[in-house]
Amino acid sequence: MSLNVLFAGRKERWPEFEPPLRAAFAKAGIKAELALALPPEAVDYIVYAPTGGLQDFRPYTRTKAVLSLWAGVEKIVPNSTLTQPLTRMVDEGLERGMTEWVTGHVLRHHLGMDAHILGQDGVWRGAVPPLAPDRPVTILGLGALGQACAEALVGLGFPVTGWSRSAKNVPGVVCRHGENGLVEALSTAEILVLLLPQTAATDNVLNAKTLAMLPKGAVIINPGRGGLIDDDALLAALDRGHVGHATLDVFRVEPLPPDHPFWSHPRVTVTPHIASDTRPDTAANVIAENIRRCEAGEPLLHLVDRTLGY
Amino acid sequence: MSLNVLFAGRKERWPEFEPPLRAAFAKAGIKAELALALPPEAVDYIVYAPTGGLQDFRPYTRTKAVLSLWAGVEKIVPNSTLTQPLTRMVDEGLERGMTEWVTGHVLRHHLGMDAHILGQDGVWRGAVPPLAPDRPVTILGLGALGQACAEALVGLGFPVTGWSRSAKNVPGVVCRHGENGLVEALSTAEILVLLLPQTAATDNVLNAKTLAMLPKGAVIINPGRGGLIDDDALLAALDRGHVGHATLDVFRVEPLPPDHPFWSHPRVTVTPHIASDTRPDTAANVIAENIRRCEAGEPLLHLVDRTLGY
Repeated sequence: MSLNVLFAGRKERWPEFEPPLRAAFAKAGIKAELALALPPEAVDYIVYAPTGGLQDFRPYTRTKAVLSLWAGVEKIVPNSTLTQPLTRMVDEGLERGMTEWVTGHVLRHHLGMDAHILGQDGVWRGAVPPLAPDRPVTILGLGALGQACAEALVGLGFPVTGWSRSAKNVPGVVCRHGENGLVEALSTAEILVLLLPQTAATDNVLNAKTLAMLPKGAVIINPGRGGLIDDDALLAALDRGHVGHATLDVFRVEPLPPDHPFWSHPRVTVTPHIASDTRPDTAANVIAENIRRCEAGEPLLHLVDRTLGY
Repeated sequence: MSLNVLFAGRKERWPEFEPPLRAAFAKAGIKAELALALPPEAVDYIVYAPTGGLQDFRPYTRTKAVLSLWAGVEKIVPNSTLTQPLTRMVDEGLERGMTEWVTGHVLRHHLGMDAHILGQDGVWRGAVPPLAPDRPVTILGLGALGQACAEALVGLGFPVTGWSRSAKNVPGVVCRHGENGLVEALSTAEILVLLLPQTAATDNVLNAKTLAMLPKGAVIINPGRGGLIDDDALLAALDRGHVGHATLDVFRVEPLPPDHPFWSHPRVTVTPHIASDTRPDTAANVIAENIRRCEAGEPLLHLVDRTLGY
């Protein structure tokens, strides 16, 4: 029997996703009608991204699961029409891209590259930076992405502290959790990386109070979610030099409006939500595996706990 | 019996080197008079850097070895007054610093960071770069520094090709050698890292002919030695866009003169010989270990073959 799978992502990405999804289904032995439009009552699975525009899940009465192409699910979690199981994307390509972006920007700030990239003025300024073991890095969030980044930074010799809501144990990483743990994790962070999910509990986790816990001159790197930061508090901390620089990839409103003060602030680097992107080849395998599991009566991978929000 | 050890490095660095050298000697059980000036005929060992000014080694009749603080020994190798054994610095701190600098600049170019660092103009340009497995990197030179950098890049997922004069075998790295091997190593190099020693055989290894072997748009990163590159040929290759960018840390004349065209070329980033620096703490242990070995009649570590030049 053939399954009906609806691609409810952005239509512009269909040509990129269709061939790898078909290949992954074939490899997993799944017979499926995969399409951009199907009668809702006939749909077995929905491959979903918030940019696809699907808002009302009530007509999808037969749908067994909604399989998100995105790692962050904060846009769909509050949708009260969604009663079907929801899974997040945990994709090797997404992890790899995030690890490369985070490692690159940590090294950029560690090495003080911008002084050279922006200062090709003929003046030979030969200050040698400290080595990685003397540059403590803290990562807020120890999910799949946070752990992958922590592992790469530990491999390069950085002392890494990680913080998560509940206690975790990651080899080579000093793990903190809870309210007191956050104070400790922030207090040593010469470079701070935000990789928490966006939830009610993490909204504005970086605010005037927590920014003040960072050592003077700390650098903030945010490839997580825009809502983790109180923008006005960050701008104030940058203006008074308490925060040395912020490299921000995600924002409360995207694209970041051209007149937003982040664009023109000399201590801010804006990047356009490129830290990591779901990669069709590897993501398609994750989608296919979850359909195979569901059909076989096995538990879904990366099922979202909608109370926790991730 | 106490040994006499002359510090013939730059005098300005004496305060940085004296305490770690004394500590390393004590740890290795070496009793030594360590000083900036000693009667030449009384000197047992010379701790050497070319910036210290020592040129004539003939009066040092009792000296058992000259221990270089630098990894590159091309400035002392041609000195005909030197008849004593010469060792190069192979220092964990030097390797670590080089690995951080090379990994950081490879990721910078891989991720296309400069477009964002230099282009904070309010325009949201969301192109996602390929992943590391699709970005071949070639390293010319597989000595201690080249191998350390190769290992870090392999760890991040880059396909790494290494080239050396004689055949080598480095885990995870496609190793090439000799003339034909150079053609192959250059032909795939989207990012090329130069970590060869400066010798007669490597002078101008990157010239008009070899630059033309690179794929169009290749990026060159040179933390090795300035003499590895024919500057005019590189400028011509940059001007016609065959080479996409060059990040250069070393030059034939240092500091690079303010009117050198590298400073103003839009496709060149000059950094002031900071890719790696001998770190006093770790280097002192290497110096002490070689004195201990020599006194015990054991072979010196990192002995320079003056015919090969390294």
